[in-house]
Amino acid sequence: LQFEVTILGSNGAIPAFNRHPTSQVVSYNGSNYLIDCGEGTQLQMSKYSVKRGKLDHIFISHLHGDHYFGLIGLLTSFNLNYRTTDLHLYGPHGLDEIMNVHFKYAETKLKYAIVYHELKADEPRIIYENRYFSVETIILKHRLPTTGFLFKEKQPLRRIITEKIAEYKIPQTRIFEIKHGEDFVTEQGITIANTELTREPNLPRSYAYCSDTIYLEEIVPQLKGVDLLYHESTFIDEHADRAAETFHSTARQAATIAKKADVQKLLLGHFSARYEDLSIILDESRRVFANSHLAIEGETFPVDIKKI
Amino acid sequence: LQFEVTILGSNGAIPAFNRHPTSQVVSYNGSNYLIDCGEGTQLQMSKYSVKRGKLDHIFISHLHGDHYFGLIGLLTSFNLNYRTTDLHLYGPHGLDEIMNVHFKYAETKLKYAIVYHELKADEPRIIYENRYFSVETIILKHRLPTTGFLFKEKQPLRRIITEKIAEYKIPQTRIFEIKHGEDFVTEQGITIANTELTREPNLPRSYAYCSDTIYLEEIVPQLKGVDLLYHESTFIDEHADRAAETFHSTARQAATIAKKADVQKLLLGHFSARYEDLSIILDESRRVFANSHLAIEGETFPVDIKKI
Repeated sequence: LQFEVTILGSNGAIPAFNRHPTSQVVSYNGSNYLIDCGEGTQLQMSKYSVKRGKLDHIFISHLHGDHYFGLIGLLTSFNLNYRTTDLHLYGPHGLDEIMNVHFKYAETKLKYAIVYHELKADEPRIIYENRYFSVETIILKHRLPTTGFLFKEKQPLRRIITEKIAEYKIPQTRIFEIKHGEDFVTEQGITIANTELTREPNLPRSYAYCSDTIYLEEIVPQLKGVDLLYHESTFIDEHADRAAETFHSTARQAATIAKKADVQKLLLGHFSARYEDLSIILDESRRVFANSHLAIEGETFPVDIKKI
Repeated sequence: LQFEVTILGSNGAIPAFNRHPTSQVVSYNGSNYLIDCGEGTQLQMSKYSVKRGKLDHIFISHLHGDHYFGLIGLLTSFNLNYRTTDLHLYGPHGLDEIMNVHFKYAETKLKYAIVYHELKADEPRIIYENRYFSVETIILKHRLPTTGFLFKEKQPLRRIITEKIAEYKIPQTRIFEIKHGEDFVTEQGITIANTELTREPNLPRSYAYCSDTIYLEEIVPQLKGVDLLYHESTFIDEHADRAAETFHSTARQAATIAKKADVQKLLLGHFSARYEDLSIILDESRRVFANSHLAIEGETFPVDIKKI
C-alpha cells in the first residue's frame, strides 16, 4: 500500500528564499492527510497536484502562524468549491475560535461540517484510527503547547502466494481468512498448511513528525525504530544558544534523536531564514546520522516496505 | 514624483493557474501603500522586491478572505523582523478582532503598534492625507461592506526653471515660495515675475481601486477623469447573471464605468478561476474602452505625469 510524505513547505517562521512555511501531506492508499498548513499551502497543493477531494483530515501541531496561517484559506476554498464531506480538524485549543471569527465576519455558511478534535499536549494519545493505521500525538516542548504526530501502520496481513490460489482452487471468499493465517481444506478434504499458501507479512511501517521542539530525549522511546522521522532542525549547532532560547533544535540535535531512536531515515526541516544554503544543515546532521535528507518542498519521500 | 501601482495578485476568490489572490502596492515617492492582502502577499512582496521598511499603511477593502488572509502573516513577520514603527491599518469593522484572536493564541507581544482605522461603507471619506496626496474611500456594493480607495494627488507646485536660479542668484531658502507662485526680488531690487521663473505645475494625478463590486454607476462622478482605474472584472458578459448574483462585475461593465468616468487607463482584475486564458476578458473590455490592460501579477503600472 502507498505510504509517502510530500513536503509542501519546510521553512521556519519567516518565509525566505522563496521557501514556504511548514506543511506536508501524508498519502496512504490514495487518501491524503495534511500536517500543518502554513500560508500558501493551498497554492502549494495545486502546484504539486495534491488532490483535495481525498483530504478529510488535517492535523495542526501548534498555533504559531507558520504552521497554520494557510488553514483559513484552504477551509474557505473547500467551501467555494462546494465541498460537502466532513472535514476532521485536529489542533490545539483555540483553533476553532480563530477559524470561527473569520467565518463570522465573512458571513460564511459552510456547506460541509468541520469536526473539531481538540488536542491536549500532556501525554501521547491515539487521535485517529482506520483499518490500516493509527495516528498518535507526540508531546513536544516548544513555546506553545505543541504535538507531533506518529503515523503507525497496523500489523499487515500475511501475503498470499498467487499461484497457490489456482493450484488449490481457493475461492475468493476464503482469501481474507487465509491472509489472517488460517489453513485451507481442499475439495478433496486435504488440509493445506497456511505456511504453504502465504509468505510472512510485511513489517508495519511508521512515520513520525516532530516540529517544533527543543531537543527532547523524552520522545526517543516513542520514536524507536520508526522508518521515517521528520524532525525540525531550525538551526546549526553554531547557533545552539539561539535554538535553546527559542525552543528549537539544531541539525546535530535532530540527528542525535534519530540515532538514539534508531530510525531508518531522517528528514530535516523548519529551516531558519538565516540560512540560504541548506547544505550546512545537511552536512552537520550526516556527521551524526548518515541517512539524513533535507525536506525540500515538492519532494516526496516514500515510507519503504520492510520485508522480513 | 514616483507614483505607480505594482500588482501582487489579481485572481478572484479561488486561487487558480498559479494566480494569487488580490493585493497591490501603490508606491509614491519611495513609500509603499498596500491595498488588500490576499494569502501569500508577503511571499509576493519578496518575489517582486517590495520594500517592507517603506510600508506604514495597509488598506483592506472588505473581509472576504481573498482580500485579507495574507494580512496576519505579514503583521507577524513584521514582528519577527523587529519592526518598531507604527503600522496604520484601514479596514472594516471586525478586522482588529480577527487579528487579535490570532495574536492571543500565539501569545504574540507586538514590538510595534498597529493603529487601527475602522472604515465605514456609508459615504466617501478622506481616511489618510500627507503633503502630496490624500486617500478617500469609494463606496462599493458587494455582499459585505466594501470600500474602494482613491489616491488623489494634491495640486503640485509650479516647476522652477533651473537655469533661472543661477541667473538671478536665487538662494535655496526662497525656492519653496517661488514654487508656490511668489515673485523674486534680486539683490539689485529688481522684481522678477514668477512666470519668468517657473513653468505651469503638473496636473494632479489620481489612482482609483474598485474591488469587489457589482456594476455601480453611482461611483462614476467620483472617478471622473482619474488617470488610472483598477476595476474588478471577475466575469465576462456571457456570465453576467452570475456576476449580478455574486455582486461582481463583467469586463464590459468595468469598461463601461471607465468610459463613463472618462478615465485615462483601465486595469482589469479579480479574475474568476473559470478563465485560464484571460484574453477574453481583455478583448471584451477593449471593445468598450480601448486603453484597457490586464492587471497581471508582477507588473507595475505608472500613473503618468500629465503636463499642461
